[in-house]
Parts: sequence; structure tokens; C-alpha cells
Amino acid sequence: MSTVLVPGPVASGVPDKPVGAEVVVIGLGPAGAQWLTPEARTELAAATDIVGYATYVNRVPVRPGQRRHATDNRVEAERAEFALDLARRGSRVAVVSSGDPGVFAMASAVLETRADRGYDDVPVRIIPGLTAAHAVASRVGAPLGHDFCMLSLSDQLKPWPVIAERLEAAAAADLVIALYNPASRSRRRQLEDAREILLRYRKPETPVVVGRAVGSDAESVRVVTLDELDTAEVDMRTLLIVGSSRTRAHGSTVFTPRSY
Amino acid sequence: MSTVLVPGPVASGVPDKPVGAEVVVIGLGPAGAQWLTPEARTELAAATDIVGYATYVNRVPVRPGQRRHATDNRVEAERAEFALDLARRGSRVAVVSSGDPGVFAMASAVLETRADRGYDDVPVRIIPGLTAAHAVASRVGAPLGHDFCMLSLSDQLKPWPVIAERLEAAAAADLVIALYNPASRSRRRQLEDAREILLRYRKPETPVVVGRAVGSDAESVRVVTLDELDTAEVDMRTLLIVGSSRTRAHGSTVFTPRSY
Repeated sequence: MSTVLVPGPVASGVPDKPVGAEVVVIGLGPAGAQWLTPEARTELAAATDIVGYATYVNRVPVRPGQRRHATDNRVEAERAEFALDLARRGSRVAVVSSGDPGVFAMASAVLETRADRGYDDVPVRIIPGLTAAHAVASRVGAPLGHDFCMLSLSDQLKPWPVIAERLEAAAAADLVIALYNPASRSRRRQLEDAREILLRYRKPETPVVVGRAVGSDAESVRVVTLDELDTAEVDMRTLLIVGSSRTRAHGSTVFTPRSY
Repeated sequence: MSTVLVPGPVASGVPDKPVGAEVVVIGLGPAGAQWLTPEARTELAAATDIVGYATYVNRVPVRPGQRRHATDNRVEAERAEFALDLARRGSRVAVVSSGDPGVFAMASAVLETRADRGYDDVPVRIIPGLTAAHAVASRVGAPLGHDFCMLSLSDQLKPWPVIAERLEAAAAADLVIALYNPASRSRRRQLEDAREILLRYRKPETPVVVGRAVGSDAESVRVVTLDELDTAEVDMRTLLIVGSSRTRAHGSTVFTPRSY
């Protein structure tokens, strides 16, 4: 039942392309082999080339004859163009992402680059994966059990006023909020500001799930309240889930009932 | 790295419980074995009893000695209590859900029932799964590539004004919107109303992904525009993804760029 994305019209003048040349953007799921889907495993095995951020490439088992292109490059568009270029020259390229590649990750970077830099002749498929928020949620119960949103707090690609407006809208509409990219070494202010915005709409005792490196040996998952959330403890590997007015902390579990 | 949810204080008077008795709420992912995680497969094999809506129980391979309790019961709390009761009497019970059990599914029903009906002595774990929105998104590209929300349109458990307010907030904040439970045989008006609300904020040509039974033999995924969306074609097995102002339809792909 794999639906191949039909590539756009082939640009004239492009030489014959080997059969099977394509880019497959693959979600590895959060850290740990327990969440890698059979589909993703099969696609990884069929690739001639693995492309991705070094941390993610290192999660793919080494296979003889398979080339590995681990980059420290933070510019996603460049990594995407590198992959599309390899495929155009005949490779079956797996671009690997942690979690789901369609959530704040490589899938849209590859598709945008394909559309805007003349790679419509290169077929691209996306293989979904478990995104971090659901893994973190499962560790404490079901905080995402009712209407929720997933927002990135990074202002590298969008201006802070847009982020602030979205936080306000989500908070006012009483959605549970999963925060991706809450902070990095240099980016510390955003989470402080976000917490202030949220506290205008949510009670201080609102449960907040602080999940770090879920699925890895370094995993830690803690439940705190919004007013006791220590933003200094949050880094790039952390994902936060902020409860709605209905989210309940009961013993060591946190869940949001479906009824409102 | 499996983190066991520590059960609350054991109620006094509860007799000795066999070791290993627990409820494990397992996400099967959308239809199709390609998205069942190794973790979920292992947990299914270890269960003495499988409990769930018949359609989902039927997706679990039959194992000798394993009891199957397929229900047509639509009351989730009753199914949850049945499972908790079985576990209290010594069973290792797998409650199965399609997709991710933490997204509009059984995980919060089990945890709420456990908290409110005196089952704190029964351990509960949640095994995450791929939720339908990411599978549908992957079929067309990366429409969820930027800030998004997941809303249920069902007004069985929450009043319509709450749903309408959330749609307005999400639309005004320019989030991509995944709509779960958009319609059923008897529930037809909600999607009409939702479309009207969305058209007040989004352009008529906004891409809408209409994904039905993704992963199954009956899968169909189409991309239409918001003004041409035919709500009569939408049923319980359908999930919709409504683009933001930045979502692009390019050839047969749909993606939302990360930059804003």
C-alpha cells in the first residue's frame, strides 16, 4: 500500500536516470530501536546512501556497500540539495531524521528544495515515524489525550511575535501544548517568555511533562508544575508537554480526559 | 529503557496480586503491519488477554493460549474497567488501539477509570504508536512540517461551542490543523460548520489532505482545496489535514515550510 509520490514533469535535457534512483526521507522514531517501524527498517536496508545529521546516521546499522554521509551541517536546505543531487546521479538515498521526518524535520526541507531548486525529476517518498511528543506522553500516561498542538519555540526560522501569538491562541483555546525545540545553549530567553505567556492563561499548578532524550540511555522524564518549571534544566534534547485546564496529575500519571 | 508507571498506594484489603498482572495500552499504528513497532509486537506477544474494539483486536495475530475479548462496546470507560478488572484478577492485559493510544483513544480512558474507580493498585503502562495524521501526511509530503494542532470534531464528549472556539483560535494563529473524527453516519453537520469557520480565516485555495483508511487495502489519499472539499465524502475512517497560509501544493506534493 505504499503510495509513490508521482514526480512532477521531467525537466527536458535531463539524461536517463537509473531505475530506483530516489530520495526516501525516513523517520527513525525517538532514540532506541524499539520504535523503528518495519517499514523504515526495510527502506534503510534498500538504500545505497544514508544522509543525515551525524547523530541520526550513527543510529543506522552499518551495511557493507552502503555509503554514509554524516554531516554536522545545520543548514537543512544544503543537506536536502546534497541528497537530491546524489539521487539524480543514480543513488537510492535515505535521508534520516529522528522522530517523524514530517514534524519540524527534514521532509519539508527536502520537498521545498526539490520544488524551488529544480529537482522535480527526482522522486521523493516520506516514511513516517513516531514523533517524540507521543513517546514522552506515553511515559507518564496520556497528557495528549485530548485536543493539542505541537509548536516549535525556535525563532531561527520564524519571528518571536508569531510564536508568542500562537502560544496565546493555544493557551486561550485550552489546548494541551507540546513544545519542540524549547531551548538550546544560546537560545534561553524563549522558554522563559513562553512560560510567562502560559501563566497568564493556565493555573500555576498546571502539570508540565519534561521529557529528555526519551528512548535513550540518558532518558529522563519528570512531571512538574508550570510555576515550578526550571527553564535552566531544559536543553535541545528536551521536549515539554504543558497540560490544559483539564489535564490531571494523579499519583505518578498525567492524563487529559477526552470529555470536556 | 521502559519506564514503568509506578502504581499509586495499594488499597488496603486488596489480596495478593500475581506478579506481572497489569494493563498495557498498546498503539497498533494505522492499519497495516508496516507501522507496528517492535516494542508493540513484543508487548502483544507477552499478554495473556487482548481487549479492544473488534476491528483492532482482529489486527492482532492469534496466539495459542491468549484470550481475546473483542467488544462492540462504544463506551470506553466500560472497556477500560473490564481490562482493569481482568488485570486485578491476575491477567496481563493488552488493551489495543489503532494509531497512538494517547491520541483520542484508550490510554486516557484507562487512566481516568483507574483513578476514579479505585484501581490504583493495578499497574498501567502505555506503549506509543504512530498516529494517523503522520501517516496521512507522509503520503502527500509534509503538510505538518510546521506548527500544527490535532483537534477532534466529535461533539459526543465536548460541546460544539468549545470545538468552534478551538477551530477559530487555530485558524487565526495560522496553525496547520489535523481533524480527527471529522464525521460519522449520523454526525454530518460538524464538518460543514468547521469548513465555514475555516473559510473565514483561510483562502479558498488552501490545500486540504483527505486521507481515508491509510495503510489498509482501502486506502485513498486525495488533495483538494478548502472550497472544493466535499464533506459528503468524509466518514469515520477519514482524517483531514487543513493547510496553513504557508502550506504549498506543488505538483502532487503538499508541504509546509519550516521558515515563516
